[in-house]
Amino acid sequence: MPLRLTQYRLCPRSRSIRLVLAEYRIEAELLEELPWEWRQSFLAKNPSGEMPVLEFDNGLMLCGAYSISEFIAEDPYFGANGSASAPPVLIPGTHEDRAEVRRLIDWYHGKFDREVTRELLIEKVYNSMRPSGPIAPDPGVLRAVRANLKYHLSYTGYLADTRRWLAGDDLSFADLAAAAHISTCDYLGEIPWTEYPAVKAWYQRMKSRPAFRALLGDRVPGTVPPLAYSDLDF
Amino acid sequence: MPLRLTQYRLCPRSRSIRLVLAEYRIEAELLEELPWEWRQSFLAKNPSGEMPVLEFDNGLMLCGAYSISEFIAEDPYFGANGSASAPPVLIPGTHEDRAEVRRLIDWYHGKFDREVTRELLIEKVYNSMRPSGPIAPDPGVLRAVRANLKYHLSYTGYLADTRRWLAGDDLSFADLAAAAHISTCDYLGEIPWTEYPAVKAWYQRMKSRPAFRALLGDRVPGTVPPLAYSDLDF
Repeated sequence: MPLRLTQYRLCPRSRSIRLVLAEYRIEAELLEELPWEWRQSFLAKNPSGEMPVLEFDNGLMLCGAYSISEFIAEDPYFGANGSASAPPVLIPGTHEDRAEVRRLIDWYHGKFDREVTRELLIEKVYNSMRPSGPIAPDPGVLRAVRANLKYHLSYTGYLADTRRWLAGDDLSFADLAAAAHISTCDYLGEIPWTEYPAVKAWYQRMKSRPAFRALLGDRVPGTVPPLAYSDLDF
Repeated sequence: MPLRLTQYRLCPRSRSIRLVLAEYRIEAELLEELPWEWRQSFLAKNPSGEMPVLEFDNGLMLCGAYSISEFIAEDPYFGANGSASAPPVLIPGTHEDRAEVRRLIDWYHGKFDREVTRELLIEKVYNSMRPSGPIAPDPGVLRAVRANLKYHLSYTGYLADTRRWLAGDDLSFADLAAAAHISTCDYLGEIPWTEYPAVKAWYQRMKSRPAFRALLGDRVPGTVPPLAYSDLDF
């Protein structure tokens, strides 16, 4: 089942789906798309301009993390391609448990993205890539984003402190989505780890998963992540 | 099954869930929350501060349109409470069809919300309700939002023109989500109907559904929707 994933290295939604594919040990060819370019050929694939886009060899094209993750979650055979150990169920548990998993997926891919990751990427990456010349990050925006990030890290710490995984007893797509956003913020040097020990302990477990390896090896031209970014003992 | 829905009258996500409940003929007590107040008692219910929140009498609390809609969609018995005709399946069709429904739900509740409805509500409603005195809408923001709205209405017109319902042959939650956003924009006088005849014809069908009636009767203090807002022959 040769798949192609159109994605951007620091896009948290792309990262969350890369983590899913890696957990399922599904090989996918990665096509990189630069989100600030708004290329017509990419908009022809996905008129919303959002990433990631997953293409199957039969022509099926799935657009966006919501559509892709639910597609995989509702297909019991998706992961059954010779993997030695069973991959995690993306949206596990009872009917009520699943509502909790989705509440948190929405938290990270919705609220966290809007209030933190999207703004950080615009200020620190996209604006530095402008063909007309880089625009420096706006200190007012960065201040607001960092204030938002505190609330998000506190809440994530509360979840990590009171549960085995963020949504409950089992690893779920909520953990992958949260880890994707936090990994992008971490790449950009924005996570004050020492202030959030419970988040750190949970993220350490996420980072040690084999599925995480490829993400930690990624570099974006013109940027250098903090030394501890790919360190498992950060 | 007495339910309580915490919502705000012009919030498109709240509206989409009110439409779902009405299609399923499920009575719910509506509790109104004013989103610009950020009340502690509401944040205690849903720490993300987002609406709607659906509460069941057994204490189960579902937060956000994603969690609520998927909870209802995956429960085959949810609508089976004496309704004469079967309610629409929220996410109908084959595995592939369902991915298309979800792509469009994400389009409206994600992209359309971020680029249009959320900004319009802030500029035209929330900012006029400030305790420290109203702030007039920013003409630059309104201009950008209206440019975005054109793209969204063109795309919605393309879908309405080429399919029976937005996601395919069957009415789905994608139609309810789209109609919720468009109804809020329409309430605020922002839809140039004559330019988008296919959107108008589709919305006319949505508006004629009995489930739509309660939304069309809603008024927000200090605002007057255009005359045609609640008119079925607009």
